[in-house]
Amino acid sequence: MSQDRTYSIMMQTRDCECDLQGIINNAVYLNYLEHTRHCFLRHLGVDFRALHIEGIDAVVRRIEIDYRLSLKGMEEFSSSLRMSTKGRLQYVFDQKLRRQPDNAEVVSARTYVAFVTNGRPVPPPEQVISAVNDWFAGVQGEISCM
Amino acid sequence: MSQDRTYSIMMQTRDCECDLQGIINNAVYLNYLEHTRHCFLRHLGVDFRALHIEGIDAVVRRIEIDYRLSLKGMEEFSSSLRMSTKGRLQYVFDQKLRRQPDNAEVVSARTYVAFVTNGRPVPPPEQVISAVNDWFAGVQGEISCM
Amino acid sequence: MSQDRTYSIMMQTRDCECDLQGIINNAVYLNYLEHTRHCFLRHLGVDFRALHIEGIDAVVRRIEIDYRLSLKGMEEFSSSLRMSTKGRLQYVFDQKLRRQPDNAEVVSARTYVAFVTNGRPVPPPEQVISAVNDWFAGVQGEISCM
Amino acid sequence: MSQDRTYSIMMQTRDCECDLQGIINNAVYLNYLEHTRHCFLRHLGVDFRALHIEGIDAVVRRIEIDYRLSLKGMEEFSSSLRMSTKGRLQYVFDQKLRRQPDNAEVVSARTYVAFVTNGRPVPPPEQVISAVNDWFAGVQGEISCM
Repeated sequence: MSQDRTYSIMMQTRDCECDLQGIINNAVYLNYLEHTRHCFLRHLGVDFRALHIEGIDAVVRRIEIDYRLSLKGMEEFSSSLRMSTKGRLQYVFDQKLRRQPDNAEVVSARTYVAFVTNGRPVPPPEQVISAVNDWFAGVQGEISCM
Repeated sequence: MSQDRTYSIMMQTRDCECDLQGIINNAVYLNYLEHTRHCFLRHLGVDFRALHIEGIDAVVRRIEIDYRLSLKGMEEFSSSLRMSTKGRLQYVFDQKLRRQPDNAEVVSARTYVAFVTNGRPVPPPEQVISAVNDWFAGVQGEISCM
Repeated sequence: MSQDRTYSIMMQTRDCECDLQGIINNAVYLNYLEHTRHCFLRHLGVDFRALHIEGIDAVVRRIEIDYRLSLKGMEEFSSSLRMSTKGRLQYVFDQKLRRQPDNAEVVSARTYVAFVTNGRPVPPPEQVISAVNDWFAGVQGEISCM
Repeated sequence: MSQDRTYSIMMQTRDCECDLQGIINNAVYLNYLEHTRHCFLRHLGVDFRALHIEGIDAVVRRIEIDYRLSLKGMEEFSSSLRMSTKGRLQYVFDQKLRRQPDNAEVVSARTYVAFVTNGRPVPPPEQVISAVNDWFAGVQGEISCM
């Protein structure tokens, strides 16, 4: 299962996220990508923290990330994702960061997310499956992110 | 010299900025404070990166920071500063972070900033003195920050 | 109560901890200071994570930090602390970072730590009081840190 | 060209590198991987910072990273790499992080690194080619990392 709906937010880099080359450090992009996924979850009505407190952790299994061009400090960019499923246990996020206002592609990444309880793989919780199905079906989530 | 004008921006925490206690790590607040100062500089028309390339670095000399309450991930907060001068060599920023929407004080900090060239103290560059005087005089800077 | 015993570890900076000025970002020093306190706690036989799981969180209330000189990437430094008590509720850590091998002082900081349960102040847990008293009395802790 | 020599260092996680799940955040592993590559460069006698000052930046083009198990705070792990070339423009690093003392695989990553001058691709500088050839030929570098 997969589909074409795109979720997108605007973000801004910080000078402190640059390394000594004066460009955003390669690891920081994973913070941007994760923040976007968590904003998306909230948009669907799913709370990453609440899941953790219930004993279910969403964890990243694999990331493939291509760095196309470098952002500097204090630059705006859009961060978008599309979601699909991989088997019954994993969600796959195709994510893109694009510099604004020229929309140039900065980073293209594919992120594989699974769920664990006490370190052991478990299927996505019912609440998440239901929210994701609503997303695939075009039902709008309720909470928007800044 | 000191004055009462306040510069303020809205920010949002990220889940990845929390530590294992589930609250924003104490060091991350310094990122928020610095980002706010750099947004303020841009508002005044001063570019932190451009200064560095010219060989002049704005550096933090001292921070006093009181932690009143803890932010969690995905929370919005305002970050404000007031600026004053200390002698001819230092600027002092009184900074506050307030959780939104209840406006509760999260962090109160005083940050002392000086300038160095090749590691040696120098007075603030003319461009900065002029921009700061405009700020004190109530002249609006040109570039606003997200 | 206060005393003169010093706990010290060796650390090394990373290039990714530098900002665009090519020096360690001011916020990163708080990571170094915290890591040293946590290593010290382990040295005393106290586990920060285990305390959290029991519902008791050690939190930073205030930091005063003076930046004397800047570290660059891949530099070694020593990180030392002395501990004292402030009233019945707070511990105070006087911490110094010194560049190696020249031992030049990089950062001098005073950190105030308290304990909370569900966000409310509580006295230090018995286990911590006992371990700290052993430290003051010159009894060696058991677990050493890298 | 490729070869079987392995470079390895020991590292330790910090509690502040954990996120609210109580495990090291997925982005932090990229800091570990980068630090290991920079230690390796130093081992070969190549200085990442000096290259930057000369106007040549080593940049990450792509990372594929598999997360096998999660580290917690204050855990020791080994970080190893093998290096090969991809065409004339890229170096490829096969990197592994293994928890200690049980040597369990934590992360397996492939990192593609290229060189740029003013944002444009350039071949690796002579100094780097020479050092890498020495590495492939079994000649020991001079500077070791902590």
